[in-house]
Amino acid sequence: MPQRQGRQTLWLTNHPVISASAGVVGKKEGEGPLGKEFDKVFDDAHLGKDSWEKAESAIHRSAVELALHKAQKRKDDVDLLLAGDLLNQCIGTTFGVMDFGIPFAGLYGACSTMALSLAMAAVLVDSGAAGCAVASTSSHFCSAEKQFRLPLEYGGQRPPQAQWTATAAGAAVLETGREGVDVESVTFGRITDYGVTDANNMGAAMAPAAAGTIADRLTQTGESPDDFDLILTGDLGVVGSKLLLELLKQEHGVDIHRQHADCGIMLFDLDRQDVNSGGSGCGCSGAVVCTNIVRRLRHGELKRVLFVGTGALLSAVSARQGESIPCIAHGVVLKTQVK
Amino acid sequence: MPQRQGRQTLWLTNHPVISASAGVVGKKEGEGPLGKEFDKVFDDAHLGKDSWEKAESAIHRSAVELALHKAQKRKDDVDLLLAGDLLNQCIGTTFGVMDFGIPFAGLYGACSTMALSLAMAAVLVDSGAAGCAVASTSSHFCSAEKQFRLPLEYGGQRPPQAQWTATAAGAAVLETGREGVDVESVTFGRITDYGVTDANNMGAAMAPAAAGTIADRLTQTGESPDDFDLILTGDLGVVGSKLLLELLKQEHGVDIHRQHADCGIMLFDLDRQDVNSGGSGCGCSGAVVCTNIVRRLRHGELKRVLFVGTGALLSAVSARQGESIPCIAHGVVLKTQVK
Repeated sequence: MPQRQGRQTLWLTNHPVISASAGVVGKKEGEGPLGKEFDKVFDDAHLGKDSWEKAESAIHRSAVELALHKAQKRKDDVDLLLAGDLLNQCIGTTFGVMDFGIPFAGLYGACSTMALSLAMAAVLVDSGAAGCAVASTSSHFCSAEKQFRLPLEYGGQRPPQAQWTATAAGAAVLETGREGVDVESVTFGRITDYGVTDANNMGAAMAPAAAGTIADRLTQTGESPDDFDLILTGDLGVVGSKLLLELLKQEHGVDIHRQHADCGIMLFDLDRQDVNSGGSGCGCSGAVVCTNIVRRLRHGELKRVLFVGTGALLSAVSARQGESIPCIAHGVVLKTQVK
Repeated sequence: MPQRQGRQTLWLTNHPVISASAGVVGKKEGEGPLGKEFDKVFDDAHLGKDSWEKAESAIHRSAVELALHKAQKRKDDVDLLLAGDLLNQCIGTTFGVMDFGIPFAGLYGACSTMALSLAMAAVLVDSGAAGCAVASTSSHFCSAEKQFRLPLEYGGQRPPQAQWTATAAGAAVLETGREGVDVESVTFGRITDYGVTDANNMGAAMAPAAAGTIADRLTQTGESPDDFDLILTGDLGVVGSKLLLELLKQEHGVDIHRQHADCGIMLFDLDRQDVNSGGSGCGCSGAVVCTNIVRRLRHGELKRVLFVGTGALLSAVSARQGESIPCIAHGVVLKTQVK
């Protein structure tokens, strides 16, 4: 069962593992540096559906189906599916997973959802509450632009600090007693608000939440950045990543520049793909962690990774009302399995 | 630690209890049959704020503060807050709870959120993952009407089968080793879709989900309706409650008419308060369960209650796209504590 250290960190003692995972992406993401890693690249942004929302549900569904297939699980083997997305009332998830008939707990963590769902699933599997759980999330560039910013047809200009919502989904199957990647510990984040109100600068809004969760964890566990091969943020992009390193150094005296990488920067070729500050969206870290990171951990290329999923908890309404952008970051430590 | 029975039901073996809970409501709800039960009645629907969304955040915050106060807990004593609401990106919750600085896991279960958050919190406390957890939710008539239907200023007519979103919030503090109300077991629901597309008839959409969860539970545990004093649905209203009883009888051969009550029917005086089919909204079952039901269980008036929170997982976008309304229902069994 999970052992708490400090208020936020739980050590999982029954070796929950990601026994299989899958990441699927759109065309642009498939053309990025990680293109070959993904289980499926959908060249048609509509996926044959008549709305962006339905297309997002289709990629979400695809990621879960592929992860189950790779884990050799039937839908009936799964005790609980934990998932969410960015769309209003999480319809990307609901319509994506409803036909599975799997007991379902909806989550809302914005772009931190992959970390939140992984953390929750791992804790529930560790405690025996679920024998097998699935954690998943999705995002779609077109459904997110339409909802949070402007209709695509408007052709609005994107400022340089803006990020590009990935068309992507990730899903992981968690259980015990199988080969895979260990989920060693999790750290639940607190909502952090530095007063950033620019909805085109999510990286700056989310960086303090990531810094807080990393600093909270290191303080509470006594770990140092050197205890990790990689401290991987969800999707701060270039602007947010720079801020994260500065904040950690100035406010907490912690230097992670040797360990840090960011899923939003990894997903795209920033020089070539015109995504400004980098990728974002629930599916960005979802697809990157469920493919590249899990693969490298499986092969021992990476031994111990602190994945910090970051989410901006705004809505279009709160933004229009001039509210700040409260953010959250959840941490999950993934480890190469000792055989 | 939790013991599974079947795929969906968990028996909690370390006696997690609701050590304190609070329910707060708006003026109309305060004038209903349960008016005297609530910890606070806000006569001003704005709560002094300049938007309905901020008013909802204020009632959410108030419920959590009161529950913590009654449990004699400081914010720092809480390991995890699990909460959500109906608003896009759950901003009612985020802006309501962010100043607490409590580690936070966002949930999305629409009007099933009180049951989902109670279930999750109880499982996490039972397993030791959290020493103390808070489960909470909120809704506001005006923010919900604006988002899901029409601006209030439009003065639209409401059909007789429509329900009235409660201005209300509920919060419960869960821990072990304290006096209170036992959370004995939980049942996670599956998404159910009977093809209902009328967003003014949530009761009809949600009834099959409630029937499914009740039937799944009884089948998997071997319990009968007589094992409960009360089988309490979240907010099916009059139309949905009638359908629930029929569905359970016809499809599952189960008769719960002697045990059944519905939070949406309990909250208002249907003859006098012009709420059509009854109350709804996350805060409806949140406030009713966290006050009336917990009080009656504490005093032994009720011994064992199956609370089935019901949620309609639609969005305004999915409704406009002609999609059906997938629904979910989560079950939580609350019991009088044996001393």
